Amino acid sequence: MTIFEQRESNVRGYSRVYPVTFTTAKNARQTDDTGKEYIDFFAGAGVLNFGHNNEAMINAMIDYMKNDGVLHSLDMQTSAKAEFMQTFTDLILEPRNMSHRIQFMGPTGTNAVEAAMKIARRATGRTEILAFSQGFHGMTLGSLAATANEYFRNASGVPLNHVRHEAFGCEVPCSGCNQGCGLEALDHLRARYLNTSSGMAKPAAILLETIQAEGGVNVAGKEWMKGVAALAKELGAVLIIDDIQVGCGRTGNYFSFDDLGVMPDIVCMAKGIGGIGTPMAMNLVHPELDKHWSPGEHTGTFRGQNLSFVAGKVALDYFRNDDFMKEVKDKSVLVDQYLQPLLHADKSLQLRGKGMIFGLDMGSGERSAAVVQECFKKGLIIAACGTGGKVLKIIPPLTIPKSDLIAGLEILTESVRSVMEKAA
Amino acid sequence: MTIFEQRESNVRGYSRVYPVTFTTAKNARQTDDTGKEYIDFFAGAGVLNFGHNNEAMINAMIDYMKNDGVLHSLDMQTSAKAEFMQTFTDLILEPRNMSHRIQFMGPTGTNAVEAAMKIARRATGRTEILAFSQGFHGMTLGSLAATANEYFRNASGVPLNHVRHEAFGCEVPCSGCNQGCGLEALDHLRARYLNTSSGMAKPAAILLETIQAEGGVNVAGKEWMKGVAALAKELGAVLIIDDIQVGCGRTGNYFSFDDLGVMPDIVCMAKGIGGIGTPMAMNLVHPELDKHWSPGEHTGTFRGQNLSFVAGKVALDYFRNDDFMKEVKDKSVLVDQYLQPLLHADKSLQLRGKGMIFGLDMGSGERSAAVVQECFKKGLIIAACGTGGKVLKIIPPLTIPKSDLIAGLEILTESVRSVMEKAA
Amino acid sequence: MTIFEQRESNVRGYSRVYPVTFTTAKNARQTDDTGKEYIDFFAGAGVLNFGHNNEAMINAMIDYMKNDGVLHSLDMQTSAKAEFMQTFTDLILEPRNMSHRIQFMGPTGTNAVEAAMKIARRATGRTEILAFSQGFHGMTLGSLAATANEYFRNASGVPLNHVRHEAFGCEVPCSGCNQGCGLEALDHLRARYLNTSSGMAKPAAILLETIQAEGGVNVAGKEWMKGVAALAKELGAVLIIDDIQVGCGRTGNYFSFDDLGVMPDIVCMAKGIGGIGTPMAMNLVHPELDKHWSPGEHTGTFRGQNLSFVAGKVALDYFRNDDFMKEVKDKSVLVDQYLQPLLHADKSLQLRGKGMIFGLDMGSGERSAAVVQECFKKGLIIAACGTGGKVLKIIPPLTIPKSDLIAGLEILTESVRSVMEKAA
Amino acid sequence: MTIFEQRESNVRGYSRVYPVTFTTAKNARQTDDTGKEYIDFFAGAGVLNFGHNNEAMINAMIDYMKNDGVLHSLDMQTSAKAEFMQTFTDLILEPRNMSHRIQFMGPTGTNAVEAAMKIARRATGRTEILAFSQGFHGMTLGSLAATANEYFRNASGVPLNHVRHEAFGCEVPCSGCNQGCGLEALDHLRARYLNTSSGMAKPAAILLETIQAEGGVNVAGKEWMKGVAALAKELGAVLIIDDIQVGCGRTGNYFSFDDLGVMPDIVCMAKGIGGIGTPMAMNLVHPELDKHWSPGEHTGTFRGQNLSFVAGKVALDYFRNDDFMKEVKDKSVLVDQYLQPLLHADKSLQLRGKGMIFGLDMGSGERSAAVVQECFKKGLIIAACGTGGKVLKIIPPLTIPKSDLIAGLEILTESVRSVMEKAA
Repeated sequence: MTIFEQRESNVRGYSRVYPVTFTTAKNARQTDDTGKEYIDFFAGAGVLNFGHNNEAMINAMIDYMKNDGVLHSLDMQTSAKAEFMQTFTDLILEPRNMSHRIQFMGPTGTNAVEAAMKIARRATGRTEILAFSQGFHGMTLGSLAATANEYFRNASGVPLNHVRHEAFGCEVPCSGCNQGCGLEALDHLRARYLNTSSGMAKPAAILLETIQAEGGVNVAGKEWMKGVAALAKELGAVLIIDDIQVGCGRTGNYFSFDDLGVMPDIVCMAKGIGGIGTPMAMNLVHPELDKHWSPGEHTGTFRGQNLSFVAGKVALDYFRNDDFMKEVKDKSVLVDQYLQPLLHADKSLQLRGKGMIFGLDMGSGERSAAVVQECFKKGLIIAACGTGGKVLKIIPPLTIPKSDLIAGLEILTESVRSVMEKAA
Repeated sequence: MTIFEQRESNVRGYSRVYPVTFTTAKNARQTDDTGKEYIDFFAGAGVLNFGHNNEAMINAMIDYMKNDGVLHSLDMQTSAKAEFMQTFTDLILEPRNMSHRIQFMGPTGTNAVEAAMKIARRATGRTEILAFSQGFHGMTLGSLAATANEYFRNASGVPLNHVRHEAFGCEVPCSGCNQGCGLEALDHLRARYLNTSSGMAKPAAILLETIQAEGGVNVAGKEWMKGVAALAKELGAVLIIDDIQVGCGRTGNYFSFDDLGVMPDIVCMAKGIGGIGTPMAMNLVHPELDKHWSPGEHTGTFRGQNLSFVAGKVALDYFRNDDFMKEVKDKSVLVDQYLQPLLHADKSLQLRGKGMIFGLDMGSGERSAAVVQECFKKGLIIAACGTGGKVLKIIPPLTIPKSDLIAGLEILTESVRSVMEKAA
Repeated sequence: MTIFEQRESNVRGYSRVYPVTFTTAKNARQTDDTGKEYIDFFAGAGVLNFGHNNEAMINAMIDYMKNDGVLHSLDMQTSAKAEFMQTFTDLILEPRNMSHRIQFMGPTGTNAVEAAMKIARRATGRTEILAFSQGFHGMTLGSLAATANEYFRNASGVPLNHVRHEAFGCEVPCSGCNQGCGLEALDHLRARYLNTSSGMAKPAAILLETIQAEGGVNVAGKEWMKGVAALAKELGAVLIIDDIQVGCGRTGNYFSFDDLGVMPDIVCMAKGIGGIGTPMAMNLVHPELDKHWSPGEHTGTFRGQNLSFVAGKVALDYFRNDDFMKEVKDKSVLVDQYLQPLLHADKSLQLRGKGMIFGLDMGSGERSAAVVQECFKKGLIIAACGTGGKVLKIIPPLTIPKSDLIAGLEILTESVRSVMEKAA
Repeated sequence: MTIFEQRESNVRGYSRVYPVTFTTAKNARQTDDTGKEYIDFFAGAGVLNFGHNNEAMINAMIDYMKNDGVLHSLDMQTSAKAEFMQTFTDLILEPRNMSHRIQFMGPTGTNAVEAAMKIARRATGRTEILAFSQGFHGMTLGSLAATANEYFRNASGVPLNHVRHEAFGCEVPCSGCNQGCGLEALDHLRARYLNTSSGMAKPAAILLETIQAEGGVNVAGKEWMKGVAALAKELGAVLIIDDIQVGCGRTGNYFSFDDLGVMPDIVCMAKGIGGIGTPMAMNLVHPELDKHWSPGEHTGTFRGQNLSFVAGKVALDYFRNDDFMKEVKDKSVLVDQYLQPLLHADKSLQLRGKGMIFGLDMGSGERSAAVVQECFKKGLIIAACGTGGKVLKIIPPLTIPKSDLIAGLEILTESVRSVMEKAA
């Protein structure tokens, strides 16, 4: 028995899917202790936008440590933090005319969502939050109430209150979905919120992802997103975009909402923001909301992660000009080209996505699990998402070399074909 | 205006108390950007048990990075994680005959507490949790319900349900407390839980710290702790010890409960466990409880922090023999010796603590705030805790050189005297 | 100042609308202390289906009292209760092959709804209940959570959890409603309940009125009602029909659902069931559900109201043959004939209803309040309902003499015309 | 099978304990359909303070009905209601200088408690309510949260939130209670409410009975009651006395708190207030609180029960002078004299009570159930209360003839002795 089998909690998950021990990693490749290499189409669940062990970041971190830079600082001021904040302000906020304040908290996405829900409720004096089917927002009690999947919800042990879920407005409705999403549904929802006899209290916030990553790579329609933003405004609700998995360049823009014509009151960030898995979470909060915070009302020990500030600042360099985002868009076309033939071969498959996040909907969890296993054997790490795990999520590092991308896509298409053939 | 004033959220706290920008740090000293040095009696709110930028840890981390060790791994298996788990098992669990499983989650204390509450509720099928006055367990909705301070609670925006607070059983009751703590209160509580007409449902768990750090350095009485453990057992409730701030050697033993004659079903760990502010949280869960988890039911992106495993493993070296804990106990005596004279001089002061965590209760928040400011001017970082911030918390790195400890204590006693004199 | 102004709570409502003191009443007429008579189109909010001071009931009650029949009996067995139950079984349950058990509780509709929600939750082990916009189910905390109108909801002082409201499926959608009711919405709702990632837990019960009386006389479409019943069955949810205001013959059938092709698991009854305002509430509970009750688990002091059993038994005589229901249907035609011309005159008005419950939707609360005042001056008691009170509810005693009905309708049409003219 | 066995819900309770069918009743006697007579020491769970079928009330009701007095009136004004309110004001409120407003609601005690909780929460803007162990306040979701007995609580199907239970302060602590009641506990409770780190939000209201009837006839100590009232005042909480079972003369004063030196902000009344089981509930609400109600915010169909006003007004005649209350006190002495010898014979028995409510604590539910059966056989109706039903509750009509009282006490003492002997 390995130490994992002996001692790790039964809750462990990915180690069952990929039962090897990894030792090293570089950009889009991981190596296990037998020396076998894997191309990584998972990127640490969307954390590693800039690749494993990004050279520039590693160097900056090592330098910082060698100079005895402050590592842990709560929310005291450090030079590393100042530099990160200044760079983020210069490169990301100011070009967008965003006056948002930056709030740091415990370095996990769930903490960011909890903080956002808190300030939205405080500022509006309301309790209810509108979230959406398939949404994933975290595991702590507040954010879990907004997470839609019953597998996670049922683990809570207490009722999850104060969040109402409605159908997410996909750009292209999934086949057989029939949940009544889209603009018409949004109109109905609006009418009900405005009706004082609907039994529905006006929400403190509307909380959503523009692309539901964990939920199956469901891409919100642009008009629907604009409708949601308009609804939030009309209802006096805070618009919270959870950009934890699809921000930081993943969609071909820095923020996933950059090309959607909406401006959220709060943006929740984590995962990629810290650079290379160096934990960080932060919210961008409109100043009018932010002033409702009193000092220290929402704290967190690890909210001053200076290695994350250092690596995170290097990550921002990718956004000094458009080259990187152009590269992402080019790779996006490549992925699409490689996968389209699969769809022609089998009409039950569906491909969704944008930028460098794609979901290949296999129609069943069994099928996609089989593909995951097949890929792994062939040296590709890919994970399933969506209800029952029926969607293969393709989120390689944005920095993946084209050769690795192509090699991975070949393993993937081959594995899909092989599984489909066996099933047929 | 600094970038912090321009852009950081109004929620920022410590940067208002210590309004300088820190650049470097080493063991028990921090330096600001003017070159001024500060002795650190705060240790990042109890994170830096082994000092800022601990040489051995820094070196191990740099080596690991230079060798392209996997940095971010979710809950996949890595060699760094295996080594940490093996070392922890060998040095900490096995010598104590603890069969507990190790669960990793999002790397903040609040995530650990949320996971503990979840599994306790799941396993017992009950919803209520018994927590205690002055307890601090985190900021997310589940753990916040267990946190006692109304300043934090009032920020929630929704009711905090399913936790009942009772008076914490201090070793030495604070002057004027009168909350009815202690063994007799525990007897009454027991009688009420056993009475089917008390209106009190049996709890899923009893959740507490053995020393309430944030709550004012309140040290639980040993007999009371044993009574609590017996009560948990009698009621079929899970005993959860939140050792996040006072574990990892802080009290002169690895676990704060090592010398209390109790064995918790779950131990929540964070802060010091990751080494030098490298974020990690983990729960030790009794196997009988742990089997109630299904794979992936409680997840978290940053639950596989390999730099934390690397640094955390080095930290465990301090516990290969008793030397380090003996050193902590010696320093504890030193602190006590330095502070006792203050108590004789002013009967309104109270000193509480154990190992290297002390609370000097100043009786009022104004006084202690004045001392904090005075110390800061003189080059000592110390923070206030407890209701209204009336308690000065002394938690230097355990590795603090004696000279720094003495220098800090001198600044402290001088500042206290100066403030007391002005007040008189 | 009258004693009412001096001492009655500010919460009093109807006494402000009809500021006279009534002394006597008979069938469809009430007389005030100046001798002025009023035709009653309100019938005590739907209680007095068989008229004020119904002669046969009064006589039976007086006889019962003169013979010292037991008046108050909790849930002990009395001869009066036996007779009521036997008659109800013979005349109502058996002809419909209803095996339902009869449960008595505190004699108010809200108590019936609370009991229904309780047993549905107990039996299914689920917590959520699906209710509908504009639904009215009572004022106590459990039933209030299912009541849709925010005026009532906002008075609760605590969050109202565990009920989800969806759009009610009106036979004829109100003009400008746009809530997305109807069969398609039901299909979408079904899809979401069946989707394990919708964030919507399967409900313990679906709770609704077939005609929302308080909510504005909204008549459910028959196909929609059948769809709701099918959905309840598919989801394993208890179907609860709240027939408190529209049962007991009000719609032209004993139960409002008699001609809708559905059979509820629980029927909530109150108001008319007790005869002439003699308080009673009862649930009809399918035996498979009822067996989940343990003795005395849901109690209530006044659940054995023998005067109500006596009067209620007399009321059942109206259902020994079809004559009475035929009479109701005839009167229904009459009402419709009288009111249709108003609709032709003003397209903004809408008439909804069935049997002897009609709602004349005036489009605004101001208008309908003006009509109520005008009618009252002219000797007609009529009340407003629906959101903002914009609907005039016409629910005279079913026993109203045709002459009174016509006289009342003339006052009403005249008043509506007068108000509409002034508004024009 | 009787109709009850065939058709009544499994929830029925008393009909299992007293499995006969009652036909007539008069003052303190009930007769079953075989002609067997029973002395009634239960009085409809404390409703029939003035006896079954009180002649004066019956006559007034018959007269009222013969004159076609309005029976059902919602909250419109009627002459019967005016007379009741005027008489209540003259005889009860004004002599006590009580400026309280009178609020009517659905005619059950639980509705009164729900209304009281609502307005307390509204007026204070707080959510939590402090209630006590063994308290009984009703079965609907709001009041059930304040009811202590887990048998009732467990039936709710959803968590019961927003009420905290503390130990009730008995005049004489029950043997073996050890819940920590009394003045010292109240002091501790006060300290915790005033401590901002206790985790306990200040309550909207303190809700209690002065004698817990259903809970086992626990009599609050006078000093404790005064302490509770002082605490409510200090905390800005509404003091609600639930006088539903022990008001209306039961304790030898009209209100149970008349001789306790406290004046509640809200008094909840039901049971006896309506005269002879004619349902009524009402709250007396201090004008400063009452002004927080908006018209119609808390309604109820049967809140205008004119037969109850008529009978209830007659009941008030008993309080025109002190004779009736003196009679109650005399009978109280008699009961005590008869029961004291039982206590001397067996030290495990305990007698508690005041006025005409006594609890004979048998120490076990089995024993008291045996006594109930034995009494019933011998022609005495008596019921058990308290945890596990271990207390025999003696609450005959206040109007019981001395001869019946003595005859009943003889059956009771004989039955107790017989059961104790068998047990020995």
